[in-house]
Amino acid sequence: MIGLRKPKIVILGAGYGGLMTATRLQKSLGVNEADITLVNKNDYHYETTWLHEASAGTLHHDRVRYPVENVIDRSKVNFVKGTVASIDREGKKVVLEEGEYPYDYLVVALGGESETFGIKGLKEYAYSITNVNSARQIREHIEYQFATYNTEEEKHEDRLTIVVGGAGFTGIEFLGELANRIPELCKEYDIDQNKVQVLCVEAAPSALPGFDPELVEYAVSLLERKGVEFRIGTAIKECTPEGIIVGKDDQEEEIKAGTVVWAAGVRGNSIIEASGFEAMRGRVKVDQFLRAPGHDDVFIIGDSSLVINEEINRPYPPTAQIAMQQGENVAKNISVLVRGQGEMQDFSFDNKGSVCSLGEDDAIGVVFGKKVVGTKASFMKKMVDNRALFMIGGPSLVMKKGKFKLL
Amino acid sequence: MIGLRKPKIVILGAGYGGLMTATRLQKSLGVNEADITLVNKNDYHYETTWLHEASAGTLHHDRVRYPVENVIDRSKVNFVKGTVASIDREGKKVVLEEGEYPYDYLVVALGGESETFGIKGLKEYAYSITNVNSARQIREHIEYQFATYNTEEEKHEDRLTIVVGGAGFTGIEFLGELANRIPELCKEYDIDQNKVQVLCVEAAPSALPGFDPELVEYAVSLLERKGVEFRIGTAIKECTPEGIIVGKDDQEEEIKAGTVVWAAGVRGNSIIEASGFEAMRGRVKVDQFLRAPGHDDVFIIGDSSLVINEEINRPYPPTAQIAMQQGENVAKNISVLVRGQGEMQDFSFDNKGSVCSLGEDDAIGVVFGKKVVGTKASFMKKMVDNRALFMIGGPSLVMKKGKFKLL
Repeated sequence: MIGLRKPKIVILGAGYGGLMTATRLQKSLGVNEADITLVNKNDYHYETTWLHEASAGTLHHDRVRYPVENVIDRSKVNFVKGTVASIDREGKKVVLEEGEYPYDYLVVALGGESETFGIKGLKEYAYSITNVNSARQIREHIEYQFATYNTEEEKHEDRLTIVVGGAGFTGIEFLGELANRIPELCKEYDIDQNKVQVLCVEAAPSALPGFDPELVEYAVSLLERKGVEFRIGTAIKECTPEGIIVGKDDQEEEIKAGTVVWAAGVRGNSIIEASGFEAMRGRVKVDQFLRAPGHDDVFIIGDSSLVINEEINRPYPPTAQIAMQQGENVAKNISVLVRGQGEMQDFSFDNKGSVCSLGEDDAIGVVFGKKVVGTKASFMKKMVDNRALFMIGGPSLVMKKGKFKLL
Repeated sequence: MIGLRKPKIVILGAGYGGLMTATRLQKSLGVNEADITLVNKNDYHYETTWLHEASAGTLHHDRVRYPVENVIDRSKVNFVKGTVASIDREGKKVVLEEGEYPYDYLVVALGGESETFGIKGLKEYAYSITNVNSARQIREHIEYQFATYNTEEEKHEDRLTIVVGGAGFTGIEFLGELANRIPELCKEYDIDQNKVQVLCVEAAPSALPGFDPELVEYAVSLLERKGVEFRIGTAIKECTPEGIIVGKDDQEEEIKAGTVVWAAGVRGNSIIEASGFEAMRGRVKVDQFLRAPGHDDVFIIGDSSLVINEEINRPYPPTAQIAMQQGENVAKNISVLVRGQGEMQDFSFDNKGSVCSLGEDDAIGVVFGKKVVGTKASFMKKMVDNRALFMIGGPSLVMKKGKFKLL
């Protein structure tokens, strides 16, 4: 049928959600059924959940990323390397810095941003574990601090102090890597390990809020044994070029630190609000098909979407696991819409559990409802990491990028 | 003979000159003939002439150093890790931060310091290739600049500009390594190599003053082909946190640069002048036995000594080669003095030539009076480097630390 226009599907972001959508769509739809375009800032995908390793320097950043080309069938998906400026909902097009892309169906999978809760100086003076660029900057910043220490006649001990803001999932995983990395750094830069201080500041009354208290205790005492000092129930009031100012029970204290890494909190992508979607901290409360309310053609998944866990009437935390399941769901539903046959399926999150690593050889977690710690949990964590690769890129990607030092 | 006091020989510094003195003395003198003490700031020796590689990041800093213990016979030489505060010439003792050491014969082999010629801001804002600490700081500083570039929304291209002050031996050798390192850094940090600028500023009317013009031409055009830009006959007027201000023919120009490495000029050690020795830029014009004028018990060798090349009536430049020959001469003469028999020998420098490397695989030089370039010169350079190891630590040190990628 000459003149019949193929529907245009545009996917924004090649993270867990976006790549899952793209790889599932390229399988389910034929070349003649739709035009699929995937837009991403970089020509590579990175494993957000591995960035704490690249940041600490325990895993090279090239190990946490792979070219989008590796998993995309370019005969079916048009890949555009570009930066999204805004989404024109009325005009049904995406505005990139490099041009415009009209869509019939849009999948917004742009990922989250660091949430600084308006804390003064955090944006300017703290590092955050956000992407490959920021991860290797953290790695190099810490190395530079250590390298500089011995060049100074008057020693600045605070160069060797690293503050991690937040004892949530990312904060704890980063601390686990850091604790393993510090002895290596001390050897590399001829530094007495006793002079190094690693400090975790958490405003909540406990580390890893939401995790089983027994597991939290395991994690905290393991990290403490490795030299991490915790300040729980302590809020960062301000970040300065010299360190941080913390507050607890109306008392303020300055902690000097050469490195401050903010690892507490993710918000939705700023493009969401900039494009006029109604959102809470950048996250859109999507409908049962993961669509933005009032927009039958816009699906939002991953860190910028908000899905309520009915059991506890609170949002699911943004994870790779949920983003990937959302991607699968959206791919199915868009196929239904494109073909005009079948029925869309509601999204429901199948929580397989979560494992929080504590360095290469230890972890804590709940998997299929069971608590695990130690090497067993660490093994599970690597399986989880390899599974994400497998789901998106199949066995060949696991071979290329997988974690095989399993025990 | 009970009560006969053994003369105390104190050697300050475990560089080329100091280690040569110590290893030769431990061979020539018996345990009962003298007490030998070697004082050094670090418990390791480093190859000053390889620091440009560690600074560029082309050779790990652990490859350019080895423990002093490796080459010292501890039954004959007492090694003290300590920092010299001053030399008490009247009291015939060395004052360390950690205590005092009386001497009958003193060998000052403390090495040189960076000469900044009073240029404003150089001490504060420029790096210098001085020791292991400063070398790895330069390496990490450059890496941090490259790592930071991609994290910034507004790109600061000058982060990728590296200024090398001085086109003398060290400057040119550093540029050679840097030119090889830049493509690796660009790969590591996802940076377009065209954005990187490496600039060499030299006040003299030519690069490598004193070298054969044909060889200089070879070096400069090779480095230019690899992307280095030369500003010859251009003086650095000031160094600022943002870069440098240069002057040529009454014109001033600001060059913004994330990294400024000052590689132009060595002066004698500040301990020399602080201890009241008469000196020119920290260098003492020693007598024919390498003694400080008026001090029969103080030998000064290496970068803090000044020996005139009678042929051209100018001082020999400070090199590892001359320092090692001085160390040998001093060891012989101290043996003569300790034993009270034989005659002291005048020092005379036997110039075997010099090779200036241009990266791992190229070099220029004059060896035994013959000009060499290219792989042949590069091979010679590695032989020179290995020879220094051999002279001080014998074949086992060459095996441990030698450069074997000879072709």
